[in-house]
Amino acid sequence: MSARTIEQHRTAVATLLAPLRDSRATETLPLSAAMITARPDDYRDRTLAEALTSPVFLPPFDNSQMDGYAVRAADLRTAGPTAPVTLTVAGPINAGDAGTPLAAGTAAPIMTGAPIPAGADAVVPIERSDPPRFYPAHTPGTVTFSAPVSPGTFVRARGSDLGSGDRLLPAGTLLRAAQLGVLAGTGLTELPVLRRIRVLLVATGHEIREAGTPLQPGQIYDANSVILGQALQEAGCTVFARPCRSDDAADLLAILADAPPVDLLITVGGVSAGAREVVRDALGPLGVGFEHVAMQPGGPQGFGSIQLPGAQRMPVVTFPGNPVSALISFEVFLRPVLRRLNGLPHPDRVLHRAALAEDLESPAGKHQLRRGIRSADGTIALVGGASSHLLHAYAAATVLVHLPVGVDRVSAGDPVDYWSIDD
Amino acid sequence: MSARTIEQHRTAVATLLAPLRDSRATETLPLSAAMITARPDDYRDRTLAEALTSPVFLPPFDNSQMDGYAVRAADLRTAGPTAPVTLTVAGPINAGDAGTPLAAGTAAPIMTGAPIPAGADAVVPIERSDPPRFYPAHTPGTVTFSAPVSPGTFVRARGSDLGSGDRLLPAGTLLRAAQLGVLAGTGLTELPVLRRIRVLLVATGHEIREAGTPLQPGQIYDANSVILGQALQEAGCTVFARPCRSDDAADLLAILADAPPVDLLITVGGVSAGAREVVRDALGPLGVGFEHVAMQPGGPQGFGSIQLPGAQRMPVVTFPGNPVSALISFEVFLRPVLRRLNGLPHPDRVLHRAALAEDLESPAGKHQLRRGIRSADGTIALVGGASSHLLHAYAAATVLVHLPVGVDRVSAGDPVDYWSIDD
Repeated sequence: MSARTIEQHRTAVATLLAPLRDSRATETLPLSAAMITARPDDYRDRTLAEALTSPVFLPPFDNSQMDGYAVRAADLRTAGPTAPVTLTVAGPINAGDAGTPLAAGTAAPIMTGAPIPAGADAVVPIERSDPPRFYPAHTPGTVTFSAPVSPGTFVRARGSDLGSGDRLLPAGTLLRAAQLGVLAGTGLTELPVLRRIRVLLVATGHEIREAGTPLQPGQIYDANSVILGQALQEAGCTVFARPCRSDDAADLLAILADAPPVDLLITVGGVSAGAREVVRDALGPLGVGFEHVAMQPGGPQGFGSIQLPGAQRMPVVTFPGNPVSALISFEVFLRPVLRRLNGLPHPDRVLHRAALAEDLESPAGKHQLRRGIRSADGTIALVGGASSHLLHAYAAATVLVHLPVGVDRVSAGDPVDYWSIDD
Repeated sequence: MSARTIEQHRTAVATLLAPLRDSRATETLPLSAAMITARPDDYRDRTLAEALTSPVFLPPFDNSQMDGYAVRAADLRTAGPTAPVTLTVAGPINAGDAGTPLAAGTAAPIMTGAPIPAGADAVVPIERSDPPRFYPAHTPGTVTFSAPVSPGTFVRARGSDLGSGDRLLPAGTLLRAAQLGVLAGTGLTELPVLRRIRVLLVATGHEIREAGTPLQPGQIYDANSVILGQALQEAGCTVFARPCRSDDAADLLAILADAPPVDLLITVGGVSAGAREVVRDALGPLGVGFEHVAMQPGGPQGFGSIQLPGAQRMPVVTFPGNPVSALISFEVFLRPVLRRLNGLPHPDRVLHRAALAEDLESPAGKHQLRRGIRSADGTIALVGGASSHLLHAYAAATVLVHLPVGVDRVSAGDPVDYWSIDD
């Protein structure tokens, strides 16, 4: 079996998952500050499932941009430094007031955001009136202006931000603070959003145990469910983690049968050449194919789709079981496509180039991904060796260094490609 | 009152909030894949509150890197193409097995991750043995090797990733997939993490109404609680949104008295020159100072600390009430310091420079922040005008354009500074 290239496998996985773009149902979230702050995860990285049209004008009514006097511009037409115009002070208009019509020859104290009264068509800021301050409430008086004002001055016109019937936001919009805010401003109470991709994550192995249980000789704690559970969530997915602590295919199939409905199955481990490989044994007969990709770590890959009794056909991606192999497999094959499907920004990592701080050998026939750290001098220092069990070293890394097929040696100072993994 | 610079106010706010770095308690999260996937928000953007030391070796025991045969290297010392060495096949060792000692003159089938048995010191991959495959389980037989093997070959040594007593992760580590994974691998069941900064968010205004309630003339829906609630959460905070739909200082003080304990109070609105300004009226007498910052939008700013009966002294930051002003105030004055205090990456936005696509005028005495969009040709096109009520335009923007004090005009094609807000 000749090894596939990274690109071939990445394309195969993306093609496998592409139907999820359309097959997911929309779901509805309540739009309220109380819900957003009570259940922040529901609103993290959500995207609009459909284009929305505004049901209202924003602002909903003409309102004042300043604290000042609402006037009829015609009343001040002749005002000038040598020809001041004095108007009678009408009742004040606060934000939230309904407002009463403004009679000719009067000026109404108006606060920022308060509705422009019928009859008025401009606002003169308080500092341009004489006296340049408001009278105490209910004090009758007059106010004098020494300059004319154009109609519309310091008036925020109804609909000047958004018209009723205008496109509010397009489908696919990522809902951050401003986007949620404008939706709230229109009075919308429900958000149609894309449902997150739901993933069943099955880390496998007779040897894995849950934290908190004592280890017997030969056993290890299950890091993969934690690693991929978190990584999938950061790519916008909802995750159901159901470890299979067995090498028996029947146990894995029982887990699949009992699991909640999901869009995608991801398995970890159980795919190498050993005598009992639970993923290979259980899913191979159902049609999942196993391949070797020319990369290190993360060579043993698999994908396909399976049909469980009473369930829809479901895509499957299988990763190797070493934690570093599994996380790099996720980085290379799943993170971009899942972020894209979930509507998240920056689905692809940005590739940078910098000098490597040390000599390095790499298998010429494989694309190698080594863990590294950006140094203060701009070079990339490796952390840990090539082996795929070095998870502690991975946890200290800030970059992944790429050594493509055909490269068997890099000397200190030579440029290498890398991407950052610490954001 | 002369206007303060952006830098002066930013420094003042950062200084006000600096004590929160130390005064917050640590909290403990359970470390399990079940909890991480059931309550994803608890694990989003969390940082370690203290340095951790590993209680165990990782890996916890010598184990095989390959599917192959565990051997005593001394048994194969003389093996060569013309002098093959044949060993008796011992019982197989699967991952999760305890393993039994390997007798001299025998070779044990061993699976990836399985413990190296006592006596064995190397693994020969299955494809380098003759026959190059495993016998069915419990079939006695022999296996032949045509090359010697060095001790340690394909053995992942106990502690080769992490030693017991070694530094596991330093305080302040952002807990992403790999970091959570290595902690889980050590069997840790509890995570000491920094408690999120807790914020009481009080949007004010006699005119604001909750979505779902019909609007009377002069009323608007409360967008600010949604906008800042979401923005604060994205900066790592826990938020309690308690709008004050009143211009009466007593109502605002009652909200503060009833609120849960928090680290920081943020108010929105109620700070301009109108007759009744609820934030100014309620918090001014308690010691909050109100300033004007030379920026547009977002000029009216305030900060200080207040002492409520029976509570600790609490820092306060006040924002102006227009939604665009409030969100830009958050961007400039709070987002960097809150992300830093919460241990989040990239506290500061990266400043870029590109040509503006159109002519633009700006008040020379103020730093202006305009909303824009990166165009396909690399230039920046403005979206919406300068006015601070244009929230719909903000929701379409991908960048904020900076026009510093002293600039009153930019011509199409001139370079401007901007930062991205769409990530």
